[in-house]
Amino acid sequence: MTDIAQLVQTLGVAARAAARGLAAASGTQRNAALTAMARRLSDSQEALQRANALDLDEAARNGLSEAMIDRLRLTPARILDMVEGIRQVEALPDPVGEITELRPRPNGMMVGRMRMPLGVIGVIYESRPNVTADAAALCVKSGNAVILRGGSEAHHSNQAIAAALAEGLSEAGLSAGAVQTVPTTDRAAVGELLRADRYVDVIIPRGGKGLIQRIIDESRIPVIKHLDGLCHTYVDRYADLAMAQELVFNGKMQRTGVCNATETLLVHQAVAAEFLPPMMDRLIQAGCELRCCPRAFALAGGHPVTAAGPEDFDTEFLAPILAVRVVDGMDQALEHIDQHSSRHTETIVTTHHQRAMRFLREVDSSAVMVNASTRFNDGFQFGLGAEMGISTDKLHVRGPVGLEGLTALKYVVLGHGQLRS
Amino acid sequence: MTDIAQLVQTLGVAARAAARGLAAASGTQRNAALTAMARRLSDSQEALQRANALDLDEAARNGLSEAMIDRLRLTPARILDMVEGIRQVEALPDPVGEITELRPRPNGMMVGRMRMPLGVIGVIYESRPNVTADAAALCVKSGNAVILRGGSEAHHSNQAIAAALAEGLSEAGLSAGAVQTVPTTDRAAVGELLRADRYVDVIIPRGGKGLIQRIIDESRIPVIKHLDGLCHTYVDRYADLAMAQELVFNGKMQRTGVCNATETLLVHQAVAAEFLPPMMDRLIQAGCELRCCPRAFALAGGHPVTAAGPEDFDTEFLAPILAVRVVDGMDQALEHIDQHSSRHTETIVTTHHQRAMRFLREVDSSAVMVNASTRFNDGFQFGLGAEMGISTDKLHVRGPVGLEGLTALKYVVLGHGQLRS
Repeated sequence: MTDIAQLVQTLGVAARAAARGLAAASGTQRNAALTAMARRLSDSQEALQRANALDLDEAARNGLSEAMIDRLRLTPARILDMVEGIRQVEALPDPVGEITELRPRPNGMMVGRMRMPLGVIGVIYESRPNVTADAAALCVKSGNAVILRGGSEAHHSNQAIAAALAEGLSEAGLSAGAVQTVPTTDRAAVGELLRADRYVDVIIPRGGKGLIQRIIDESRIPVIKHLDGLCHTYVDRYADLAMAQELVFNGKMQRTGVCNATETLLVHQAVAAEFLPPMMDRLIQAGCELRCCPRAFALAGGHPVTAAGPEDFDTEFLAPILAVRVVDGMDQALEHIDQHSSRHTETIVTTHHQRAMRFLREVDSSAVMVNASTRFNDGFQFGLGAEMGISTDKLHVRGPVGLEGLTALKYVVLGHGQLRS
Repeated sequence: MTDIAQLVQTLGVAARAAARGLAAASGTQRNAALTAMARRLSDSQEALQRANALDLDEAARNGLSEAMIDRLRLTPARILDMVEGIRQVEALPDPVGEITELRPRPNGMMVGRMRMPLGVIGVIYESRPNVTADAAALCVKSGNAVILRGGSEAHHSNQAIAAALAEGLSEAGLSAGAVQTVPTTDRAAVGELLRADRYVDVIIPRGGKGLIQRIIDESRIPVIKHLDGLCHTYVDRYADLAMAQELVFNGKMQRTGVCNATETLLVHQAVAAEFLPPMMDRLIQAGCELRCCPRAFALAGGHPVTAAGPEDFDTEFLAPILAVRVVDGMDQALEHIDQHSSRHTETIVTTHHQRAMRFLREVDSSAVMVNASTRFNDGFQFGLGAEMGISTDKLHVRGPVGLEGLTALKYVVLGHGQLRS
């Protein structure tokens, strides 16, 4: 066994033991741990900034862009945000131990289901260091142990954050093994973690498409993932066109670099001539580039739009760019979505009840909306509290992954001697 | 692309198209299809027996055991059982389209979840041909298309069953692509199916451990699986010992070759001397071999028991053999289960409320029971109706995989123009 394999095994053994303790702990104990984790983090400002300075120096030496360096930076305000985030997670309802649908069978035994932690969660991320605190808080709240592997550019910061959180766990009498980071930047450790199916129950990656794809290909452990966000807004022939203009503008332009931004606008041909010119005007004024199908292009009049290539309807722009297509009707809109959507978020703008219900039923995406901005597909917006990400998978959890997504239901049976005959 | 890859792609494209139609179909339409499927199967007795004769001839030529040949045989009674099975699935409540937890957010939009089919399910099995009909019925009822790949020894029978079912689908106006079998016994087709992640949403294998392990290793598609059934019955110090004797006997001996049979008996040391000798007596009388830890061995008196090797506590016997261990107390019982269980089914026999609740909470298995036989972990026994198998996974579905396990929840949002700010 290599040193790295040995290292990951040690983490796994400790995490597995901690997970048992955490699953057996009461909600009060897990909340006390979160209180202590928040306090320790808040008290560690100096240590965090010292560690962060090491990462920032290295980033500068490695010539990282100013934007990337800014993402790395742990300012007092950002540390306070992490602390506040932990307190918000603590305040959420306890998901563990709930028993539902406990019903008698004809032989008198009661059969129901109990919500329980998944066990050990591996989080692999390349995002800002705050993910370390957010993910740890969600895992502890839901009774799971976590092994964190952040990006090497934030290594010292992540280690310092996790060390503060582990102190909080110990202070509250829970095992520090519940929150561990991989103590090396060696990339071989990621491979070992993805093979550690004896110790890790699920892998949750957060990062760019390259990272996610590599994890899918390599992992022997089930992965809860978010791959693409190619979201559609469909303006139906029965849309309130003023509302539609607001929803399209919000879906595309409220924030463009995010997974739930609208990337393609579909417009029913019966309203395209009335709807599109003012919509185009507003988007172009705001700096949005429009890539139009021939029918939309023909309606552009003097607006400076470009002709869409076929790839434009399969591209997650993450930028102020919108693909626009005029469709013959709702069937073609559904067909287009089925062919091109990444199954993240789609919305219909319509006043027609049956058409709204048909859209809800037939579109197969993690969130399907009527008369609401695609930008709402988000844990906070849906009322789940913080989230580990948004799943575009179908199994286990679709959409925002909150506390419930970190749990599973086991069957419980209460009998008084029932025998199978 | 090889011919086999081409073949699997053709199946995949047809299944994907059929799945869209099936998901949009009403419960009435899906039930009408099940009615027609049952009738066509019932009307196909002759064709089925002709196809079955080809398989039986080949089995005899290949020197298959009499037991295996018997499993293959499609008698009129077995065909009737399949027909009856389809009708029972038809009678189950429709799982598709239910909306739960639809609640208003502060901005007035309603957020809830809708239960929907998974899409296309690949079922790979080596069992009796009846799995073809059972799996198809569960998939159609839950709005999923299915691609079936049965064992090559039942190839002609499976093809004939699926052909009858597809006729039923067509008769009811649904696409025959919803139920397809892989029309070749070439094993390369399994590999292709496991890589067809563009078309298949989940793989459900049914068969021996070798098959399952190969599928886990090869599949690029999420797998819902059942690996081992190493189930424990723990007789607590506060057990009703008469009840305990019945539960152990039923758990072990009611049927021994099944995944939910008890394989290890754990007995609290305070009651071992009273409980074990008559228990041993009864089991040995019934032909059960006992493999005992040193303390249990010491209590055996004149009973012909053997000393357990360490591997006996990690073996799924699937036979009238029981490993027996005396434990110091409940902590050690929980520790033993944590170390050795396959997380399928465990039961505690106790009259003590808090100990029962602790066991329920702390044992991490697909079904955890109090005072009931491990043999009850089963879709019919739990009231789910028919099942696709029992999942020992943690993600998505644990325990019996019924109609609900073949569905997923997507978020639905009902708004009236809400924008994100």
